[in-house]
Amino acid sequence: MSELKNDRFLKALMKQPVDKTPVWMMRQAGRYLPEYRATRAVAGDFMSLCKNAELACEVTMQPLERYPLDAAILFSDILTIPDALGLGLYFETGEGPRFRKTVRTQADLDGLIKIKAEDDLGYVMNAVSTIRKELNGSVPLIGFSGSPWTLATYMVEGSGSKDFRAAKTMAYNDPALMHQLLSLLADNVIDYLNAQIRAGAQAVQIFDTWGGALTTPGYKEFSLQYMKKIVDGLIKEHDGREVPCILFTKNGGLWLEAIAETGCNAVGLDWTIDISEAKRRVGDKVALQGNMDPTMLYASPKAIRAEVKRIITDFGTGTGHIFNLGHGITPDVTPENAGVFINAVHEFSEEFNNKM
Amino acid sequence: MSELKNDRFLKALMKQPVDKTPVWMMRQAGRYLPEYRATRAVAGDFMSLCKNAELACEVTMQPLERYPLDAAILFSDILTIPDALGLGLYFETGEGPRFRKTVRTQADLDGLIKIKAEDDLGYVMNAVSTIRKELNGSVPLIGFSGSPWTLATYMVEGSGSKDFRAAKTMAYNDPALMHQLLSLLADNVIDYLNAQIRAGAQAVQIFDTWGGALTTPGYKEFSLQYMKKIVDGLIKEHDGREVPCILFTKNGGLWLEAIAETGCNAVGLDWTIDISEAKRRVGDKVALQGNMDPTMLYASPKAIRAEVKRIITDFGTGTGHIFNLGHGITPDVTPENAGVFINAVHEFSEEFNNKM
Repeated sequence: MSELKNDRFLKALMKQPVDKTPVWMMRQAGRYLPEYRATRAVAGDFMSLCKNAELACEVTMQPLERYPLDAAILFSDILTIPDALGLGLYFETGEGPRFRKTVRTQADLDGLIKIKAEDDLGYVMNAVSTIRKELNGSVPLIGFSGSPWTLATYMVEGSGSKDFRAAKTMAYNDPALMHQLLSLLADNVIDYLNAQIRAGAQAVQIFDTWGGALTTPGYKEFSLQYMKKIVDGLIKEHDGREVPCILFTKNGGLWLEAIAETGCNAVGLDWTIDISEAKRRVGDKVALQGNMDPTMLYASPKAIRAEVKRIITDFGTGTGHIFNLGHGITPDVTPENAGVFINAVHEFSEEFNNKM
Repeated sequence: MSELKNDRFLKALMKQPVDKTPVWMMRQAGRYLPEYRATRAVAGDFMSLCKNAELACEVTMQPLERYPLDAAILFSDILTIPDALGLGLYFETGEGPRFRKTVRTQADLDGLIKIKAEDDLGYVMNAVSTIRKELNGSVPLIGFSGSPWTLATYMVEGSGSKDFRAAKTMAYNDPALMHQLLSLLADNVIDYLNAQIRAGAQAVQIFDTWGGALTTPGYKEFSLQYMKKIVDGLIKEHDGREVPCILFTKNGGLWLEAIAETGCNAVGLDWTIDISEAKRRVGDKVALQGNMDPTMLYASPKAIRAEVKRIITDFGTGTGHIFNLGHGITPDVTPENAGVFINAVHEFSEEFNNKM
């Protein structure tokens, strides 16, 4: 494996000092980039793009060619595991992901295909190793998965949901069945992320997009305990380097202390919590990733820069900040505004560090 | 005005002792009730139902005839003020509220109609006085309004929104214009709620449905300060009785201390925060309203009862709990399950109080 030329991101995850705050954007390879839309048109549908290692690599690299980002993230979908388990993932235009089958009974659960990530999600591992080769040590590559609870909501509902009626009803009425499903998913996520690490992912992030829809005890029982199980099961070191892990629960601001206690290296923040308050609450336990409102990228360059400065100032001195949006970048943002954001992070954080 | 036969709700808002925890449900007059759907069919569209005092009274009374609820809430919409200001509210089936005009410029703002709630929203005051007469002192009547920020999001977007792109962009790029709009709305909400109080509302609730989509400084600047202005401007006593005020910010769990400092009597909680934690954080300052996940009403009676018991136990001893859902009851809940919920609150809270 080649030397890493820019290790700001990995250092910040370990709470080591850096010259500038590292920055990347969730969904940075995405529809806001015209070159992404062009490659996507060549690939056909979204899953064909994910399954083609060369094209997945191409879109992963696109934002890095435009911006001085400090990390790349594998181009894939959070729902690859349920797809491999046999549910038949597809995308309706403007409707989000859907599954042909759902999991609502013991029979549904028993009917799931037994998978081994290295084989059954081989296309993801191909993408990872292709991207690592192409990156050639410029910046580290992040692998990822959906959290067990988040995957389960799609598997039970068969699609996205506003109130998670079917998934929550299963959790409330038949918690044993839900725990069987979550336990199976946690095992698969461990296998999947470890395969990504072996293929070349240098850090991993777990996206718990829907954990924040639960009550506090519900979150701990149905989401957090399975993310902890994953953290415990992950390869900690690969190819002579520690492989850090980030847990991101959207709307998880109430539970930061509990998330920080899982043993993860960093906690992802959405935009609702002040990062200074988050830092005060988690102490020295973990690094923090976030937390600018993605909608801010629709505002003027002046407003974007002011908000970046506010967040950097709010984090203050000390190590362990990875700048990011509080959720994925949205399709209608201009590439220019994304650039203003990324440059502002480096500019203000360097200045801030020099003043310390 | 007639004597109040059941004052549990008002007492709990004042943190006075009660025999059983009072309970009502946000959107308790709603589509989950077949009798509501029948009246709604008679009225035609939703706004015609709101504007007909007799029919609005009829649907307000319906849940009280079925269940031992401790409060009635005026049947109306949160968007009556923007409608009166001239934006032209209408409802597309399955699409939620929409406005024919939006407010995005100084000219749009200058073009708004100047209103006086007592006259221009007279249909609401007629509904309030008609309902008070019909209630005949059985339980208190709650009046309500949307918060300025929540009203502003609909006025700027022209509809509901997933990311509040237009409203947030106005707040970020032209905060002075947004503050003009919010200030105008706050003045109108004060006028509107005071008119409701004079017409007979015995408590008022401000629904800040979308404040939780803001950053922490954004929430304080664009939502909370205007709710505080309203609290300051409300009639505090009417007809010899204190008129308490409830502030409910959905997804506001991070900001409870700040909400409690506005001078409101009670803070509404969604279902994500443990009520014991909320109580610890706000201390003796305010009562707490909430906080069962409305999706729980899709579960079995056994699961519903267990969750009610958990929340009552979690609140523990002491005064100042009004039981409610953490958000409105949804259309597909069965009336039977709503009844299980309401009865369980009285049953377990009485038992709990007797053990103290």
